[in-house]
Amino acid sequence: MTRLSLEELRELSEAILRRHGFSEPHVQGVTETVLAGERDGCTSHGVWRLLGCIHTARAGKVSLDAVPHLSEPAPALVRVDAKGGFSQCAFDLGLPKLVEKARSQGIAAMAVNHCVHFSALWVEIERIVAQGLVALAVTPAQAYVAPAGGTRPLFGTNPIAFGWPRAGQNPYVFDFATTVVARGEIQLHEREGKSIPLGWGIDAEGQPSTDASAVLDGAMLTFGGHKGSALATMVELIAGPLIGDLTSAESTVFDAGTKSSPYHGELLIAIDPARFLGADAAQHLARAETLFESIVDMGARLPSQRRFAARERSLKEGVEISDSLYADLRKLLE
Amino acid sequence: MTRLSLEELRELSEAILRRHGFSEPHVQGVTETVLAGERDGCTSHGVWRLLGCIHTARAGKVSLDAVPHLSEPAPALVRVDAKGGFSQCAFDLGLPKLVEKARSQGIAAMAVNHCVHFSALWVEIERIVAQGLVALAVTPAQAYVAPAGGTRPLFGTNPIAFGWPRAGQNPYVFDFATTVVARGEIQLHEREGKSIPLGWGIDAEGQPSTDASAVLDGAMLTFGGHKGSALATMVELIAGPLIGDLTSAESTVFDAGTKSSPYHGELLIAIDPARFLGADAAQHLARAETLFESIVDMGARLPSQRRFAARERSLKEGVEISDSLYADLRKLLE
Repeated sequence: MTRLSLEELRELSEAILRRHGFSEPHVQGVTETVLAGERDGCTSHGVWRLLGCIHTARAGKVSLDAVPHLSEPAPALVRVDAKGGFSQCAFDLGLPKLVEKARSQGIAAMAVNHCVHFSALWVEIERIVAQGLVALAVTPAQAYVAPAGGTRPLFGTNPIAFGWPRAGQNPYVFDFATTVVARGEIQLHEREGKSIPLGWGIDAEGQPSTDASAVLDGAMLTFGGHKGSALATMVELIAGPLIGDLTSAESTVFDAGTKSSPYHGELLIAIDPARFLGADAAQHLARAETLFESIVDMGARLPSQRRFAARERSLKEGVEISDSLYADLRKLLE
Repeated sequence: MTRLSLEELRELSEAILRRHGFSEPHVQGVTETVLAGERDGCTSHGVWRLLGCIHTARAGKVSLDAVPHLSEPAPALVRVDAKGGFSQCAFDLGLPKLVEKARSQGIAAMAVNHCVHFSALWVEIERIVAQGLVALAVTPAQAYVAPAGGTRPLFGTNPIAFGWPRAGQNPYVFDFATTVVARGEIQLHEREGKSIPLGWGIDAEGQPSTDASAVLDGAMLTFGGHKGSALATMVELIAGPLIGDLTSAESTVFDAGTKSSPYHGELLIAIDPARFLGADAAQHLARAETLFESIVDMGARLPSQRRFAARERSLKEGVEISDSLYADLRKLLE
């Protein structure tokens, strides 16, 4: 393992992205995202993702210098056209407007369109929640996942993320795929030659399988059977056709077998508790704290607790990345 | 079984509610809800619920003649105070304002506060979707459900419902509890002296149990482990403190052991696709139809298909209710 300070990792990420021709706003945006993942011990969305970013760039499936464009189709709606670039610059452009609209209208929604999206949604959720707002975010992916009762991939891993601001402490945040497990988990089993539990996926004939390769060639399954499948459908709809953007199946067609990061849209919703609650806000938000205490008091965990603990550690001690990943990243500088 | 036309069932429901002192708007509102459930083959939310309504009224846990009050805390927010009555009159009062705001602002949210809520959420979702809007609804319940990793009941069954309008045909609608199964399913097993599968719930010591009575005295579990638990937490927060209303645990305290229908709030969100999509709406909504076709073409079912089929049958042939339920309902007329 190689230990690096977050500052060293930042310089490495910036250098890689500049070396491959990304404009400075994209260099900064992508670096912030992968650094946040690495810092929070969420390595699946850490600097490892830079390999995918450069692969996507080389495949011609992301704009290196897109300048996003913001529009306001309605008083409570923001749309940002990412113009084929990574999502971060579009999100950065839209965020202040989303916050302003949530505060003035009470609730607001932002569509990020035509973006290449590889970010963990909690990174975005945290930035909205930091403004004192409740936030929800969803995005499709590429078609890896069969609907409940189906036999072929149609949905993406379709994450749902939610955040709730907590005064004086880390927010309540969750962010999960609507699949039983992450795709990377199945890939890891395949690499290690291990079988996977029944229920994670089906093979290309639509039959339940414990063979990781067969499931990667077939389809993953949604968590919670038909309920997870319904949620995955909702994500397809509200972060696809509702905002004039691609479904996961359409994103797969766009990918044309290049295995790039998915190109599609994202929907974010922000609600201002102060507008619902007025003068009573503090009293009602305190009741939310009672709920959190009840969860923790019976020994259950709040989502993201592990992530926040890793953050505290990383800010002091830096992070460790595997020597092979470090070598792969340094190769991108050549 | 006793076969009744929907008109006969309507008259029976109205007579029962009038007999027990409900004001005419509540007679109509509650009747529409239980009739919709019975009509759609959703008997758990059908006329059987009238027994619970009258029980709740006798326990003094619902206002018989509450007149709801509407306020507009922000341009995209509606609040309706149900003043302790059943939720229907409050929903009826707020709906036109929610629709108007979704159309003018692009997205809008409605809180129904201080209501006694026993309705299936799809009944409400369908009415929003009938206006061409995308709709989401959530509500807590009473504390029956343990968080993932927890040992004691804290959450309600906390349903999540979603609807998507489809031109010229029944909408896409789902509505499910965030528990593994409905509470009624466990009660049914108890009545029949049957054990339940592991995973549905835990006993009062927090241990996994196949004993239906032990689980009813202990806690139900969320579907999909920590993911369902996170969703249940979100429902508690956004349909509780966010809108200045009770969590499920607080609703249980309010109930004071009377086993009445839960008293709390509900959050509904409506989005107007036309505002996001403008002139391109038809083209993008057609892509949603392609998604539905892909689901159905591989033999998977859309949620609510069975319900819509039952509706078609019931409108022609009426419905059958058990003789014992019919007798119990007629007893309420005495």
